[in-house]
Amino acid sequence: MSDVTTAKLAFTSDYMEGCHPAVLDALAATNLVSVQGYGEDPFCRAAEQKILSACGCPDGEVRFLTGGTQTNALLVDCLTEPWQGVFAAETGHISVHEAGAVEFTGHKVLALPHTDGKISAEAVRKYCKDFLADPNHEHMVEPGLVYISHPTEYGTLYSKAELTALHEVCAEAGIPLYLDGARLAYALAAPENDVTLPDLARLCDVFYIGGTKCGALCGEAVVLPKKGSISHFTTRIKQHGALLAKGRVLGVQFDALFTDGLYERIGAPAIESAARIKEKLRACGFPLFLENPTNQVFFVLANDRMERLAETVEFGYMEKYDDTHSVLRFATAWSTTPEKTDALLAALDRLSQDLPDA
Amino acid sequence: MSDVTTAKLAFTSDYMEGCHPAVLDALAATNLVSVQGYGEDPFCRAAEQKILSACGCPDGEVRFLTGGTQTNALLVDCLTEPWQGVFAAETGHISVHEAGAVEFTGHKVLALPHTDGKISAEAVRKYCKDFLADPNHEHMVEPGLVYISHPTEYGTLYSKAELTALHEVCAEAGIPLYLDGARLAYALAAPENDVTLPDLARLCDVFYIGGTKCGALCGEAVVLPKKGSISHFTTRIKQHGALLAKGRVLGVQFDALFTDGLYERIGAPAIESAARIKEKLRACGFPLFLENPTNQVFFVLANDRMERLAETVEFGYMEKYDDTHSVLRFATAWSTTPEKTDALLAALDRLSQDLPDA
Amino acid sequence: MSDVTTAKLAFTSDYMEGCHPAVLDALAATNLVSVQGYGEDPFCRAAEQKILSACGCPDGEVRFLTGGTQTNALLVDCLTEPWQGVFAAETGHISVHEAGAVEFTGHKVLALPHTDGKISAEAVRKYCKDFLADPNHEHMVEPGLVYISHPTEYGTLYSKAELTALHEVCAEAGIPLYLDGARLAYALAAPENDVTLPDLARLCDVFYIGGTKCGALCGEAVVLPKKGSISHFTTRIKQHGALLAKGRVLGVQFDALFTDGLYERIGAPAIESAARIKEKLRACGFPLFLENPTNQVFFVLANDRMERLAETVEFGYMEKYDDTHSVLRFATAWSTTPEKTDALLAALDRLSQDLPDA
Amino acid sequence: MSDVTTAKLAFTSDYMEGCHPAVLDALAATNLVSVQGYGEDPFCRAAEQKILSACGCPDGEVRFLTGGTQTNALLVDCLTEPWQGVFAAETGHISVHEAGAVEFTGHKVLALPHTDGKISAEAVRKYCKDFLADPNHEHMVEPGLVYISHPTEYGTLYSKAELTALHEVCAEAGIPLYLDGARLAYALAAPENDVTLPDLARLCDVFYIGGTKCGALCGEAVVLPKKGSISHFTTRIKQHGALLAKGRVLGVQFDALFTDGLYERIGAPAIESAARIKEKLRACGFPLFLENPTNQVFFVLANDRMERLAETVEFGYMEKYDDTHSVLRFATAWSTTPEKTDALLAALDRLSQDLPDA
Repeated sequence: MSDVTTAKLAFTSDYMEGCHPAVLDALAATNLVSVQGYGEDPFCRAAEQKILSACGCPDGEVRFLTGGTQTNALLVDCLTEPWQGVFAAETGHISVHEAGAVEFTGHKVLALPHTDGKISAEAVRKYCKDFLADPNHEHMVEPGLVYISHPTEYGTLYSKAELTALHEVCAEAGIPLYLDGARLAYALAAPENDVTLPDLARLCDVFYIGGTKCGALCGEAVVLPKKGSISHFTTRIKQHGALLAKGRVLGVQFDALFTDGLYERIGAPAIESAARIKEKLRACGFPLFLENPTNQVFFVLANDRMERLAETVEFGYMEKYDDTHSVLRFATAWSTTPEKTDALLAALDRLSQDLPDA
Repeated sequence: MSDVTTAKLAFTSDYMEGCHPAVLDALAATNLVSVQGYGEDPFCRAAEQKILSACGCPDGEVRFLTGGTQTNALLVDCLTEPWQGVFAAETGHISVHEAGAVEFTGHKVLALPHTDGKISAEAVRKYCKDFLADPNHEHMVEPGLVYISHPTEYGTLYSKAELTALHEVCAEAGIPLYLDGARLAYALAAPENDVTLPDLARLCDVFYIGGTKCGALCGEAVVLPKKGSISHFTTRIKQHGALLAKGRVLGVQFDALFTDGLYERIGAPAIESAARIKEKLRACGFPLFLENPTNQVFFVLANDRMERLAETVEFGYMEKYDDTHSVLRFATAWSTTPEKTDALLAALDRLSQDLPDA
Repeated sequence: MSDVTTAKLAFTSDYMEGCHPAVLDALAATNLVSVQGYGEDPFCRAAEQKILSACGCPDGEVRFLTGGTQTNALLVDCLTEPWQGVFAAETGHISVHEAGAVEFTGHKVLALPHTDGKISAEAVRKYCKDFLADPNHEHMVEPGLVYISHPTEYGTLYSKAELTALHEVCAEAGIPLYLDGARLAYALAAPENDVTLPDLARLCDVFYIGGTKCGALCGEAVVLPKKGSISHFTTRIKQHGALLAKGRVLGVQFDALFTDGLYERIGAPAIESAARIKEKLRACGFPLFLENPTNQVFFVLANDRMERLAETVEFGYMEKYDDTHSVLRFATAWSTTPEKTDALLAALDRLSQDLPDA
Repeated sequence: MSDVTTAKLAFTSDYMEGCHPAVLDALAATNLVSVQGYGEDPFCRAAEQKILSACGCPDGEVRFLTGGTQTNALLVDCLTEPWQGVFAAETGHISVHEAGAVEFTGHKVLALPHTDGKISAEAVRKYCKDFLADPNHEHMVEPGLVYISHPTEYGTLYSKAELTALHEVCAEAGIPLYLDGARLAYALAAPENDVTLPDLARLCDVFYIGGTKCGALCGEAVVLPKKGSISHFTTRIKQHGALLAKGRVLGVQFDALFTDGLYERIGAPAIESAARIKEKLRACGFPLFLENPTNQVFFVLANDRMERLAETVEFGYMEKYDDTHSVLRFATAWSTTPEKTDALLAALDRLSQDLPDA
């Protein structure tokens, strides 16, 4: 299979490898066990119990879906009334990078201004107040949900205080709070993070624990801290084309991820690698685009250097910075080894010193 | 994990086990190879080439999705204009068992009468002719697609002649023909089947090769015999929440299924088992509900016997037959062993002779 | 304007003329009065009060919309949950003649068998029972509403007993009953009808009183016997593009139609004309396709005679009856004069006697 | 009917009265003429010919709808592909004041920055360029249409040069240009306007000529300069619930509005009144919120004065200006008499001089 590997150092994203070995082992060990379909199997139930236990909400409910956009579109649809829209940062994944999947289900994304990818309780409060004060508000889209992600698109984190403030404004306004945890493992592994799984269960109405980017082959675990809070959930999952016949595939993986606290540890190698890369970028004089404590490193590079770097390293192109510079991204992952990071640091050194590639 | 296995003989469906060992091996072998996301990886490309080769349409295109309802809803949406509907047997999966996923995207299912789950070219032709003749047809849903499944919901198969006739009526009417192959491996393994993969590529505008029920953990391979025939396909897949970040998961599996002709052989154990079960049912005097050549066995049983059978065997309940009988289903699979079939035959013998359970 | 009139006797439909003179007078009399928009005007409020009074539900609510398909699609959407479908006769207007407007909003029409256009309480009960008994019903579209029309597509009427039975099965199943009264004036004017406006208010959850086909220029009055039973109704009307800025246009018309009981009398000329036509058809030996007591006359005619009739009379073509006969329709209206009916009867006489046209 | 008139001077909006006397006369004169339904009548055809003639596009097509939101939602849906969105000013009617009717049909509104309600060709060009340059654009909503209104929400007008630039950028990008002319008569009557109906037909792919706010009881005329450019238009109108059975109602009105150039003159009284009001506001020291040449007058008033004004005058409340001032709107109309304007001017004089009400 060596012909399919890339010869370059790949820091493009956090979904470039398969799954954590413990997940693979679990899939192998359970492969020929015969169980019911559609998530009604003992693996899904075991994973649910472990997740609810980790989240401190034993009376909750967990459902497994295959991907992030699917999960977001489904939950926005389930958590809003047909005439309502959803708040999101104007940079939010549902605002920009889901091909209009939310609008496809009939709901408007109500874009809010952001700071490094985060929205504030104050912005939500002001919008809701202005909405109600507007004499024409019956002709407008009613806010029905707050969507945030943690980490955000920019790898930043909500503090517990910020999340609590969002929880409070949602309670005031009578609308639910939904948190997209596509990269949640990288938040949990970040020393700066002060938001725990039980905090999420306490402060959010619904959230999802990302698997695809955090050690699973595929899969996201939707947590409803209050069981049954989405009516006819199975039917709606089916209606969205999101009900896996072999639900076990997701249950087995999350069972492994939540055995012995693996999920809360799995992001650590990514955080360590990202910290080393950030330090090296600073040392090399390549400025960070913004500071964040998780696994995505956004930085600014001159375009000629970007081209040289691209000869040996794969990275993400974000946007134009100015006429001669670009914003780029390195993403580390649970699977990033110290050796791979070493190699990137060496490449950055060479780049900064205009030395030839190794 | 023995606590999660069922003690009963499970013939409920064909998605109760994990994946074929060759698929599992491929997932393990490629697990830490680093590749691009969203299906732009070498595994997906290799699987595509093998599938197109098997289908005799080297200039086609293959995309991988995770499940059958997702695939059907997406393709019906992509293959019809916004004002069009889709023909399907009134017993078709999209008509009955997909929670209205097609209507959710705004399209009406135009139900046609069926014979053992199959629709006829003649029924399509008549509907189209009557539609055009109706002076009010601008106020009606225009037929825009023909949906069939092979095998059908009842395990029956279209003959090459029947499929050719459907192809011809579609060409006449200027509407595409789409074939749902969720259980296609069981058609290909049935001696009665005279429809090959190249026939499908020649006679259908789009079809999908089922993985979930045919040896994969999950996944369906959508084949477009003519590359590019669905405009902006990636965006539409994303819009439907159906684009897997780790597309490799599906590529690796289908690569394994289409290596050395595995897919065309994988259904054989199911067909052999089903044939033995049908023979035994006849011998026991338990009438088949209908005849079919594939892996689903529909039969009629007195309700008291149904209850006794349920003590040791898991089966599917289909519908009430009369006040004292029910229609039941045994489904075999690629994973059904001769020993498991032996055990079922013995249970049927005991049932017919009113002997106690073993 | 004589150049735009048809030279033929027009019995094509009941929406071929403008509005009742009393409606036109009211529009003229109020034309330059300055009032609020969006139905918040005194004309709409006055019409609402008169309608609620006529319906014996003073605590209800009335909203005005412009057309039947708009009203049906909006109300089905408002009265069902996003995962639910709506029962309708397989010949129902929403099933066949609304271009999929219901499916466009994401809901499936669950077609039920009919007798002369009517569905039975028993059919609804059986479907609901079978649905709940089906172990896969979470994968199916849940019934969420019963749609009927009165008169039906075939001009037939529900008896009070039949409507009561539907009301009861809906109450049992916990789903609302919605009645489409596009031609309601013709029911109210039919001697055979035993269903009054207060009966509708008592037995239906929502119904609409047709204006377009019953004396208005345009407009339908939606009656909610229980005020507020549709949440955020103004916003949903707006979302469907159905909120008229000059709501007064509808309010003024319905105010006139419900002044001095006009609406309950307005259909009488149509019923009288239809009765005379039916009698003549029988006398001529032209068989009725079915019996009904309202303003649509369905009959069977040999194709060669159909062609002759078409030279002097406009009528509706319904469907092929057999290779040499067709099902046709004469529709009478509030505006049909005895003289116009006389002329049609004379034409039928000549046709039956193979005499030349006058 | 005197009990339903407001005692106050009503300058709330331009849809507070019924229709122009010529329109009412036409409705009365044609009332009992019997014609075909669904817009297939001679009145609609005559109105179409007159409109196409006024627009200088004899080979075009005209369809009549009942209201603005209905028209916008329908046309955005018809003019975009299912995966596309529509550009609009962030203050545009479809962005803010249509209750999400566009999103309800599955399309995203792509909000662009505005200057006094107008968007620029440059903003469209930049967005399209950045979109195509973004390596992730297949995961984003593709721009598929440009929506503008003329006059805009703020009563401002596009110059012919600005409209030509938008036409050119649309042609470059391969996307159509759609113009909402809800208040078009007030543009045509404004001396500053240099955009004629033939200009619209030449520069827009589709536009609509507003009736509801410009002298009709209800109705908007959709102009397709190129006949047939929307496929299956009748079916789509029906699917949206927007096909009026008595299409004549709209045809008769637009026939009257386009007889002897009435539509191009009908806005003049509104423009004259608005000009006098703007002059008086300046004289009184009540600053305009922005300058515009049409029938909506936006101005800033101290809140205590706003309360006093509200005792005798009805006006529109737009938004908070600062803690002690508000943005208000007077709207004049085709029906505004010089005497009514005189009364408003006198009220403004009294307000500015703190004199008691008359």
